[in-house]
Amino acid sequence: MTPLAEEIARIYGTPAVVIDLDKVEANIARTQAICDAAGIANRPHIKTHKSPELARWQRDAGARGITCQKLGEAEVMADGGLDDILISYNILGEEKLGRLASLMRRVSMTVAADNPVTVAGLPKAAAMAERPLDVVVECDTGRKRAGVETPGEAVELARQIAGSPGLRFAGFLMYPPEDGWPATQTFLDIATAGLTDAGLEARIVSTGGTPNLVNVGKLKGATEHRAGTSIFNDRMQMAAGVASLEDCALLVYSTVVSRAAPERGILDAGSKTLTSDIGGLDGHGFILEHPEARIARFAEEHGFLDLAKCNDRPKVGDVVRIVPNHVCVVVNMVDRLVTVRGDRLVGDIPVAARGRLA
Amino acid sequence: MTPLAEEIARIYGTPAVVIDLDKVEANIARTQAICDAAGIANRPHIKTHKSPELARWQRDAGARGITCQKLGEAEVMADGGLDDILISYNILGEEKLGRLASLMRRVSMTVAADNPVTVAGLPKAAAMAERPLDVVVECDTGRKRAGVETPGEAVELARQIAGSPGLRFAGFLMYPPEDGWPATQTFLDIATAGLTDAGLEARIVSTGGTPNLVNVGKLKGATEHRAGTSIFNDRMQMAAGVASLEDCALLVYSTVVSRAAPERGILDAGSKTLTSDIGGLDGHGFILEHPEARIARFAEEHGFLDLAKCNDRPKVGDVVRIVPNHVCVVVNMVDRLVTVRGDRLVGDIPVAARGRLA
Repeated sequence: MTPLAEEIARIYGTPAVVIDLDKVEANIARTQAICDAAGIANRPHIKTHKSPELARWQRDAGARGITCQKLGEAEVMADGGLDDILISYNILGEEKLGRLASLMRRVSMTVAADNPVTVAGLPKAAAMAERPLDVVVECDTGRKRAGVETPGEAVELARQIAGSPGLRFAGFLMYPPEDGWPATQTFLDIATAGLTDAGLEARIVSTGGTPNLVNVGKLKGATEHRAGTSIFNDRMQMAAGVASLEDCALLVYSTVVSRAAPERGILDAGSKTLTSDIGGLDGHGFILEHPEARIARFAEEHGFLDLAKCNDRPKVGDVVRIVPNHVCVVVNMVDRLVTVRGDRLVGDIPVAARGRLA
Repeated sequence: MTPLAEEIARIYGTPAVVIDLDKVEANIARTQAICDAAGIANRPHIKTHKSPELARWQRDAGARGITCQKLGEAEVMADGGLDDILISYNILGEEKLGRLASLMRRVSMTVAADNPVTVAGLPKAAAMAERPLDVVVECDTGRKRAGVETPGEAVELARQIAGSPGLRFAGFLMYPPEDGWPATQTFLDIATAGLTDAGLEARIVSTGGTPNLVNVGKLKGATEHRAGTSIFNDRMQMAAGVASLEDCALLVYSTVVSRAAPERGILDAGSKTLTSDIGGLDGHGFILEHPEARIARFAEEHGFLDLAKCNDRPKVGDVVRIVPNHVCVVVNMVDRLVTVRGDRLVGDIPVAARGRLA
């Protein structure tokens, strides 16, 4: 148990979600450098940290603007002094259109749409805000999530946007599968030709994803990239080969609370801390102090340790440090992040947009 | 889309976590009646609702006290006027022992321990509080989570507690597997005989679990039962055969935000709302309006709908109601629960102990 772990446990208790600000700064700089080298604007996705303070760090390091997934996140970011916000999500319903209008009066907003119903609603926000709204067409190039499936549909939706009162067609939002960039290029080229025929132009062509940082620069016509996880990294990014253990800026500090048998134990971090997001990996996290230990499964407040392969096994009361499988969902479980620099405790920052799911 | 769904979406936006207070009251009464019929005290686990208001309803319906899993939950409950609190968890470390002492000065506390290290720390809390602390020995009778594995260890730990300054041995905490009640009886009988030899007595013998409500009364010597999920119920309880769809008091209201292809769609509730807790079931929730739809997987803010088996398919903008797989983790994602009675909107209540994981 390190002196820092003892200090954090004494002051904050465990489980605690801890970020190393030195690593955070290095990760922010690395993402920015990748975008700079490719001549692409950096528009980080704040869903990972949900902190206006860290978003300002990203902006001050050179980010063009930020990406939010939900309106509630954008509201918190605007409150925190951020501007030029892209919501990469369909905004639907009276309640949300009213809130979008309020945001538009305060900051520069762009929203995504992948269907005519969403586009048909957005003019209400523009009318309430009494200013035009930039809209990008979300395109699916293989992930089968949201997004129109064909360039023809993309152009059709661009026309609808351009023809709608108060709306401006701003471009395309894409989230290519890591191995899907050639197909994305084909999609974009056909869609761009269709836009030309329609007398339209894509000012923004936005790509996304931390594993896709290795692909930034490969899509001709791309103007910006949205990476979220790269500010902290996690076990999934390590598995994807885009981060090393050294790059992981977020650790969950957890106490071993039970060791009822030689080959097993219980952590005080369960699914209400680390979440059940497994991310296709074996086990639910990597324990720095016990690399051979496996977090086999969870109850809500229990992490089940399988210690069969451990020679050096943790004792009851030990505080261990865990690299989670998926940081974005872990951050969303807590109201604050404890901050350190190296082996020094700094303090904590609020996760101001935590739980802003609407 | 029901008028109530439209009203909730208009006022609160989606996703929204909604509880029907009529059903909540019926569920509280049913659990109490099961315990009353067995002559067993009811000590509901508040991890499911994390609301002092609902805990007071449980108390006023006849509950003896409440169960919390973490100290932070107990603090919120004490703030909300609850007393007689059992923390069914090993409390370890200076920070937590200090907080436990503060709680002991305000309310009647019992804590669990399954190892000598935990027991060795607890006298500090008793000393700081200047009052004795009741401690139950957590026993494992097959779940392989926390808890001593043998009656001999249970008695040994009871002796350690009884011999520790400021601690009182209070009894046994058990969480039998649903099919493990005969083995639990054997464990308890041997442990009770061992206690007699040691001149000790178990004032509390506590069992737990909503699926175990069908077993309440089967353990000779049991004094109380801890059920959590039964206040709301969910798809896991339906699968376990202990709740019907009618008994499910909590629904997640979610908007269909994308329908990019005929056989699929996207909900605005993803893993940051419904969580990745699958609970051994197929799919991540049951949609009342579209029983044949399958919530196949999640991104953080996207629920992936597989509509292949649906004849009547939802449209973009439709608000649907979802019975989640596991309510306890869903409640923990939100700061408030929207409340209804039947088809009438009532208001909302805070999830005051949300995120109190330490």
